[in-house]
Amino acid sequence: MTGIYDSGLGGLTVLARLRALLPKADILYFGDTAHLPYGSRSAPRILSYAEEALRFFCDAGVDVLLTACGTVSTVAKDALAARAPFPVIGIDEACISLCRDAKRIAVLGTAATVRTGKFPYLLRRAHPHAEVRQLPCPLFVSLAENGITDPADPAVRTLVPRILSPLASFAPDTVLLACTHFPIFESSILDFFGTQTRLIDCGKAAAEHLAMSGLCKEGRGKTLYFVSDAPDRFRETAKHFFPIPEDAEIGLALSDPIL
Amino acid sequence: MTGIYDSGLGGLTVLARLRALLPKADILYFGDTAHLPYGSRSAPRILSYAEEALRFFCDAGVDVLLTACGTVSTVAKDALAARAPFPVIGIDEACISLCRDAKRIAVLGTAATVRTGKFPYLLRRAHPHAEVRQLPCPLFVSLAENGITDPADPAVRTLVPRILSPLASFAPDTVLLACTHFPIFESSILDFFGTQTRLIDCGKAAAEHLAMSGLCKEGRGKTLYFVSDAPDRFRETAKHFFPIPEDAEIGLALSDPIL
Repeated sequence: MTGIYDSGLGGLTVLARLRALLPKADILYFGDTAHLPYGSRSAPRILSYAEEALRFFCDAGVDVLLTACGTVSTVAKDALAARAPFPVIGIDEACISLCRDAKRIAVLGTAATVRTGKFPYLLRRAHPHAEVRQLPCPLFVSLAENGITDPADPAVRTLVPRILSPLASFAPDTVLLACTHFPIFESSILDFFGTQTRLIDCGKAAAEHLAMSGLCKEGRGKTLYFVSDAPDRFRETAKHFFPIPEDAEIGLALSDPIL
Repeated sequence: MTGIYDSGLGGLTVLARLRALLPKADILYFGDTAHLPYGSRSAPRILSYAEEALRFFCDAGVDVLLTACGTVSTVAKDALAARAPFPVIGIDEACISLCRDAKRIAVLGTAATVRTGKFPYLLRRAHPHAEVRQLPCPLFVSLAENGITDPADPAVRTLVPRILSPLASFAPDTVLLACTHFPIFESSILDFFGTQTRLIDCGKAAAEHLAMSGLCKEGRGKTLYFVSDAPDRFRETAKHFFPIPEDAEIGLALSDPIL
């Protein structure tokens, strides 16, 4: 079974891609809805949440784990990989080689992801002649979780340029979407930077890499959904990302919080 | 010492009012920034977070606790009051009697607050002839936490009417702001409902009630700030609510999350 771990809903964009590529894989999705949003928390706090999630995936017996969340991939993936009895793949990997011809790379992530500096480090190491800038975009997460994503929406039209304006003069030729919520704003981001700009969806790149890796075993094509809180709200908000079939059960994971 | 408990930052609007009324009280503010936003979580999860917070206030030796958060006040306050060795005051109390002449009352709260039905229950019990409607407004919290609050901001101008539109035909004469984030949007909310509408800030009403109650002891007028995660981010975002003095320390409370 293949595990997908996200702080909440953004990872559903990665699940959609992996499901399309591997129709027969059994996939276990876990969204840590009791603790989202990870992107505004401290590193120690994110590490402790990731440790709890790892125990869940170990108990479930997955063969491989994809951290379908930019914050987990940059803050906690190395710690998870060192402890897990199976391979752990992050969304910070496959996207790096896709930037080989880029000259000016902008990295859009959460505040926690940007603080690690991991994307600039990996990009500069692989492509020493590229210029790299990063920008924390926490508001994208709030908008996505509230379903405010339509490029024609006046709120989206006023807020997207405001979020991205610190990068206007940098004029990137390549933009890394280093948070799995951000692909939902793809066309608005392209409108801002210009259609000649290349957007790289790090989650999708990771899903494609994982699908090719041979690490995902074939099964019966089942998808299991687990969250750590409020399954009904998860199903409702998921509509903006990757609608969950009406008859799919959403289980509750982690410790039961009874007073 | 007087305790103020909020899920994050909204309670700072209540602290500001209490501080103005009681310059000599010692006040201990705790924002549970590791677990915000409470408003989108389930009741059992909120209860377990409130239980942890109660232990913190017990250890600190407060004389009285104000739950300066609509979600805590409606979901968890009664459970806290039953266990605490000191009085626990919620923002769901003093505001009810202020509605005595109201005919059509709208209650704006978080999703968790609205789900409890506590405000409609208390209002109908006290004022049986009033009509009451409630509306969950989670987006107000996201906007406030991201500093998007200026009534002249095009995003605010387009989103506030959209949030409130389900109440347009109800035409309330009184609007209860049942979440301590919402007073920051006071003028935008008034613009929507019309300036003849009466807005009641439940947190401010609770602070005034508490200040008059005699429960708050006099001290040296100190304010202590504690959060459960990311103190620097707390100080930064607090600027939109109640700026914390540069030299004030912000302590870390609850268990230390080390992997």
